[in-house]
Amino acid sequence: MAKDSFLVGLIGAGIGPSLSPALHEREADRQGLRCLYRLIDIDVLGVRPEAVGDLVRAARDLGFDGLNITHPCKQLVIGHLDALAPQAEALGAVNTVVFENGRATGHNTDVTGFAASFARGLPDVPLERVVQLGAGGAGAAVAHAMLTLGAGRVTVVDALADRAVELAASLNRHFGEGRAAGATPDRLPRLLADADGVVHATPTGMAAHPGLPFPADLLRPELWVAEVVYRPLETELLRTARALGCATLDGGGMAVFQAADAFRLFTGREPDAARMLGDIAELAGVVGAPK
Amino acid sequence: MAKDSFLVGLIGAGIGPSLSPALHEREADRQGLRCLYRLIDIDVLGVRPEAVGDLVRAARDLGFDGLNITHPCKQLVIGHLDALAPQAEALGAVNTVVFENGRATGHNTDVTGFAASFARGLPDVPLERVVQLGAGGAGAAVAHAMLTLGAGRVTVVDALADRAVELAASLNRHFGEGRAAGATPDRLPRLLADADGVVHATPTGMAAHPGLPFPADLLRPELWVAEVVYRPLETELLRTARALGCATLDGGGMAVFQAADAFRLFTGREPDAARMLGDIAELAGVVGAPK
Repeated sequence: MAKDSFLVGLIGAGIGPSLSPALHEREADRQGLRCLYRLIDIDVLGVRPEAVGDLVRAARDLGFDGLNITHPCKQLVIGHLDALAPQAEALGAVNTVVFENGRATGHNTDVTGFAASFARGLPDVPLERVVQLGAGGAGAAVAHAMLTLGAGRVTVVDALADRAVELAASLNRHFGEGRAAGATPDRLPRLLADADGVVHATPTGMAAHPGLPFPADLLRPELWVAEVVYRPLETELLRTARALGCATLDGGGMAVFQAADAFRLFTGREPDAARMLGDIAELAGVVGAPK
Repeated sequence: MAKDSFLVGLIGAGIGPSLSPALHEREADRQGLRCLYRLIDIDVLGVRPEAVGDLVRAARDLGFDGLNITHPCKQLVIGHLDALAPQAEALGAVNTVVFENGRATGHNTDVTGFAASFARGLPDVPLERVVQLGAGGAGAAVAHAMLTLGAGRVTVVDALADRAVELAASLNRHFGEGRAAGATPDRLPRLLADADGVVHATPTGMAAHPGLPFPADLLRPELWVAEVVYRPLETELLRTARALGCATLDGGGMAVFQAADAFRLFTGREPDAARMLGDIAELAGVVGAPK
């Protein structure tokens, strides 16, 4: 008998507003699967991020089929797993754990999710010179995805110079010398003037961090703009870029495709990403609306 | 917004064949609730019964709404709970744990479930003198239920004389001196000759323990017969008693009403026990069928 019920969850801090429960449960419902997606918030539990190992073992013992993992546990969880998929190993970060026969395997669907979203949303754009803002956890995943997609060179810009340089060094070790470089924001005017496109992977544009991540006059119509922020779906950066005529990609695609890839890993069923994109447009709108 | 999803489970040993997942999930489906019921088998996990405390805490932390508890953990779990409902406290055994605001409260729906089943199935039978076979965990719950229902005197018969005497002493402390007595099986002919009815709470009649729990010639048409075994629903005892014209009650009712009472505690919704009785007739037939 094919398995038709799935118990999954998300471990992280401050995850109350996550759209993952709705994304997974809605798609499971449409496929006739019994699915429950639980939020396991370490802030609510009052435990430290290091407790992720105990929580993962407990979830395995209590019959969970898998877990998503988010900030601040994506690196910490690795020491508690039995195996890693290649993307997770390359990135040194896990956002999805699958339990099978008592073994826990770590995956990273942030990487595959951004790659799938980009390939779908900006299929024909030039990738020779890419500038990426943000060298944090999301930035690392997105930079891996861009180089996997064939970007010639990714320059990672972060106000924390060390973080940018370290991410670039890690990318060069994996993808070959010269594929990545680190830089600080003061170099953005020159970098963007020479770039094919820009990937934005900082929190700027979310409700708590309104505004543009760089001056609007650095944009030009030939520059494509890919956004990681998905609440709101239409950030000020995207609105400004679209008004100029730039090709753009909103952050909803990454949010959906990382969930779709995790859904496939959890259930063994093929999700319908188009339907899930419809869900996130509705959900991000609802959740992001002013109270 | 009313809560409409429920994550529950069963902790015990050798619980693979349990019908509880199907009973709870089917009723939840009919009520439009998202419900997942997981089996947490300490034999499969390779942990000792004493691990029940860790498993209960883990379930609370991972977002379970409640748990059923079965052999061999019904007593062991008590030390790990924050509060006990009256039946559970009186019996010293918990089969249902409800999590609310981080607190774990223990209940016993074996007691309330058997009482509900008996009141429904044998509403008008005399209860002055009741003989009960079996002083184990199920026997203790059922004897509490019978005295709660107003039985004048329950004589508990068990091949383990100490166990019968101890259960009787515990019942007398709770319900008043003289309400219960212990006895060994050699006294059954005399006890049954004087009884209004007999409650059967040993494993005899299950597939692994076929046969009758006492000689058929001790039955007579005036004696009502209540069975705790529910797989199969029609035990040899019930078949023999019905052929004689005895009023009978099968074990399916207790199985359903303990689940229905747990469902109400878990969800706050009123279950439809009549529909659940239909489920168990179907499920116990399917599961009990020869391979």
